[in-house]
Parts: sequence; C-alpha cells; structure tokens
Amino acid sequence: MESPSPSPLAHALVAGTTGEWAITSIRPVVGASLPRAPRLQFLQGQAPMQQNPVWVLHGVTSNVRYMTEHEQHAVARVQAGLGRPEATCAALIPIRKSPEWWALAQDQRREIMQEQSRHFSIGMEYLPAIARRLIHCRDHGGEFDFLTWFEYAPEHEDAFEHLVGRLRETHEWSYVDREVDVRLSR
Amino acid sequence: MESPSPSPLAHALVAGTTGEWAITSIRPVVGASLPRAPRLQFLQGQAPMQQNPVWVLHGVTSNVRYMTEHEQHAVARVQAGLGRPEATCAALIPIRKSPEWWALAQDQRREIMQEQSRHFSIGMEYLPAIARRLIHCRDHGGEFDFLTWFEYAPEHEDAFEHLVGRLRETHEWSYVDREVDVRLSR
Repeated sequence: MESPSPSPLAHALVAGTTGEWAITSIRPVVGASLPRAPRLQFLQGQAPMQQNPVWVLHGVTSNVRYMTEHEQHAVARVQAGLGRPEATCAALIPIRKSPEWWALAQDQRREIMQEQSRHFSIGMEYLPAIARRLIHCRDHGGEFDFLTWFEYAPEHEDAFEHLVGRLRETHEWSYVDREVDVRLSR
Repeated sequence: MESPSPSPLAHALVAGTTGEWAITSIRPVVGASLPRAPRLQFLQGQAPMQQNPVWVLHGVTSNVRYMTEHEQHAVARVQAGLGRPEATCAALIPIRKSPEWWALAQDQRREIMQEQSRHFSIGMEYLPAIARRLIHCRDHGGEFDFLTWFEYAPEHEDAFEHLVGRLRETHEWSYVDREVDVRLSR
C-alpha cells in the first residue's frame, strides 16, 4: 500500500518535548537506532515545528511507485484515513534499503515486492484496521528512504505485530539495511 | 532512458550572468516560459551558485522509475556520458505532467510511456549521439516535475530536433501541461 494522494505533500516527524503523540518505545531493528525523546509531532505542509527538537525526519507523500490500477483501487475501497478517534496507537517505522535494491530496474523491484514478497497482499489483509501513510525521503538527502506511519486502535495491536512480523520475513526485507521501530500513543 | 546512477545526486540549473553554457534560446512549448538570461551553470552536488541568479531549477537524479532490467542494460551498453569535448550543444527541457497523469497507477503510466508511446525505444535510436540526464523535481516543490538535460555535437542537431519532435507527438505527451525548451552552447 502507498498513499493514494498523488500530490506531493511535505511531512515532518519531529521528536522532542511536545506533540500530540507520546513515544512509548524506540527499538533498532536493523542498524543504528534513533535517540530517545518523550513526544512527537506529526506535521503536514508548512506547520510550525517545536524549538530544539531531538530529531526530525522529513519527507513527502507522492504518487504510487509500484501498485497497479487494480491494487490501487482495491486499497482505496477499504483503507481508513489517519486521525480516527479510536486509533490511539501509532507506529513510525523509518527504513533504508541497500544500494543493491536501488540499482535494480523497476520490474525487478516490483517482482520482489509483490510477486515474491506479497507486500501489498499482506497489507490488504489488515485493512481497514491498520491505517497507513507512506512518506518518501530517499531523494531528500535524509538518513532513511521511507517513513511509514501506522495508526490503529488498541484492540488491533496484536494484528499490527503480526503484520510487521510477516513483512520482516519477506525476501523484500533482505534489502532493508536500516530499520527503527518507534511506537506511540495518544 | 533515465539516469542509470541509482544514488540521489542534487542538481541545480542556474540561469544568470555566468556559467559554462551560453543560453541561445528559451521557447515556451506548453504554458508559461522562463525569463531570459545570458548564461547557465549546470551544478551537481554542493557546488557554489552564482549570486543573484535570474532563475534556479533544483532537482535530483535518482533510481529508475519505469525501465525494465532489459531496457536498463540496453541503455547502459550504448549511452554516452555528459561532458564529451565534441558535445558543444545542449538542451534543457523542463516539463510538468498533469494531475491526471500522477493519479494513474504505476502500470498505467508504464503502459502509456513505453507500450503506447515507445518513449524508451525512440530514445534508444539516438544513442550514443544524444547524451541525456533525467533530473526529478516533482517531490521537491518546484514548478516542474522533471528537468531533462541533453548534450550533443553540432552535427547531431537535426537528429535532436527529430527526437524531441517525435516525443511531442506521443500519447504520453498529451499529459504534459507545461514545457519549456532552452537551448545552449559552449
């Protein structure tokens, strides 16, 4: 799944002393972690950022890069948006993929993601419980290639663990050379 | 064709009073033009920019977005790099595609570009005479989605006109809602 909104929209994930979200854990999955901080702002567009943040991750939502028309419509029909009142749990999972991944042609990356790893099919099984937004940052010079933001209700916490566990076992994930798992609540 | 280098590299095309390239013409093809200026700097990475430029277009080279493994290898085998001493002519063609284009799924855009419009096949016919670099700027908030930079020897000027003429007649080009054609020499 990817954001269905095709217009680029800047996002900033800002960790520090203020923000709607309380950071409950920060865990390195592959490679270096991110520094600890108590709270996080999830900012879209030109929203003002807190002074002296502990860390900031910048990126942009954009057009889909892999999904077919069929997949895009299937996701659009069932997915939920961010900000549901019951979705008081969130996860921020920044990842970076290896130079080998990025040197692959478009059809090779697509083949690994969906035909071998069933990335979109697996994600579809958890809709609409798990809402998701994909933020691109590879072309913006940051430390990560993508930031994925998930929101869900406490009753779907086990489903969320199952989802990320399955994705991390895929062949696609063997190309992930840095991953951090940040959990939050509001 | 797209840049075969998968690592993002920032570029700035800076029009003003200085730069290696003399701007010989600026012509609007679709929509608004760009202001006139005598010279242009083609800058990669963190190179310093002239003071008080007339205009600056920023972007980044990145991984391929559409080409298959077969196409990528075919291009890599025959294409020339930038900076050949005999390539004293250049063209900078900034384009923007419509919201309708960007709302299409990946397979739909690929279908229009290559299967219907033969974009890569047409470009291949002009290799290695016409060297090309694709710079992405859609996700960087600029006025255009792509900047394409071409370099060629004066004896290939007719071939270059033929190439851009053919591309502008394709179905893909019906999604272009702004295009400027800047020609240069050194």
